Amino acid sequence: MRILYHLPLSPQSRQVRLVLGEKRLPYEPMTERVWERRTEFLAMNPAGDVPLLVEENGLTIPNAGVICEYLEEAYPDTPLMGRTLAERAEVRRLMAWFNEKFAQEVSRNLLGEKVDKRLSGRGNPDGNALRAGYANIRFHLDYIGWLAETRAWLAGGMLSMADFAAAAHLSCLDFIGDIDWSKAPAVKDWYARVKSRPCFRALLNDRVTGFTPPDHYADLDF
Amino acid sequence: MRILYHLPLSPQSRQVRLVLGEKRLPYEPMTERVWERRTEFLAMNPAGDVPLLVEENGLTIPNAGVICEYLEEAYPDTPLMGRTLAERAEVRRLMAWFNEKFAQEVSRNLLGEKVDKRLSGRGNPDGNALRAGYANIRFHLDYIGWLAETRAWLAGGMLSMADFAAAAHLSCLDFIGDIDWSKAPAVKDWYARVKSRPCFRALLNDRVTGFTPPDHYADLDF
Repeated sequence: MRILYHLPLSPQSRQVRLVLGEKRLPYEPMTERVWERRTEFLAMNPAGDVPLLVEENGLTIPNAGVICEYLEEAYPDTPLMGRTLAERAEVRRLMAWFNEKFAQEVSRNLLGEKVDKRLSGRGNPDGNALRAGYANIRFHLDYIGWLAETRAWLAGGMLSMADFAAAAHLSCLDFIGDIDWSKAPAVKDWYARVKSRPCFRALLNDRVTGFTPPDHYADLDF
Repeated sequence: MRILYHLPLSPQSRQVRLVLGEKRLPYEPMTERVWERRTEFLAMNPAGDVPLLVEENGLTIPNAGVICEYLEEAYPDTPLMGRTLAERAEVRRLMAWFNEKFAQEVSRNLLGEKVDKRLSGRGNPDGNALRAGYANIRFHLDYIGWLAETRAWLAGGMLSMADFAAAAHLSCLDFIGDIDWSKAPAVKDWYARVKSRPCFRALLNDRVTGFTPPDHYADLDF
């Protein structure tokens, strides 16, 4: 059986779970407490982070972006990266946008401080980081809203990995109550469409000890 | 003519220049002082960073990883990403390793503090960042050395974008004198092979006001 080492509130792990689900590729999720730096895990992935995909044939692939490229090449039946060169460049641009820029400017400051620190016992959130995260998320929600208003899906005419990258980050932030949907109606409409896909169900059932998601988190009509 | 917006000491820009050169794709380099946040540039690339590739047909592509994927799909004649799924996953793993992990742990701490800060007038290098950078580079040189000793090229049997990603970062660090080659003989042998390729020549001729590279920087027998 295919194995995905992951953490429930890791956006990059969630992106891969969504892509596996959308492509109907079964897998066994294994929670990896990366801060314990388990020797067997480091031997499989020297970078020491999740997600890490291990295929039944033993092929071991780290990094959400690398895994997504692999899944698209290995299982092209449900294409999620666009067709033309221009479409593919736009999907990849937005994947990089969310997994590099959004991750650094928002997720690291909010999820990193509130979730990762608590789970790994590294103390309390840093106030400056939280303030930076809340300031940055406004700009990013505006940008996502603009994409959602001017296109059918974030990268253009078709559902793509860009939508899953964005929704993965937002779903984690929603879990800790850090998204004010009333201020971003276009983002909310787009997110409701992604959230209602079958591949999203497993994410909405995630529970993490010590954290209680808001009531609307798993509600499809939030 | 194809245009590449870049900075001479941006590792990600150098990676794209090497790939363009290896694939014999002519381009006009344009220096973009990203810290000035030029309106016309931000309209082309909301992320505001280099590299940014603009094709003759107007297609505009940011981010080194995204540009490299595009170049491999659009110009496959000189393949630089491996052939099998496993080879391609390994090339991409190492590209992500250098452009995310190495970039965060080493380049940002050394190049970011010494070069970017000075060019953009943001003050003096932070001592803690420099110390972290020097501590981290030792681990990374060991890892590159292990790859170079056990494989023909970093990702396996063939020269790939992984070699160019690594060499791009190391060449910038070498420019500011931050690599002690005597302590990393296997890395030096591998780097000498990459450095002697024709695509590397333009990088070795780069000069940046206010910085003087060490004598060995442009020497192929360093």
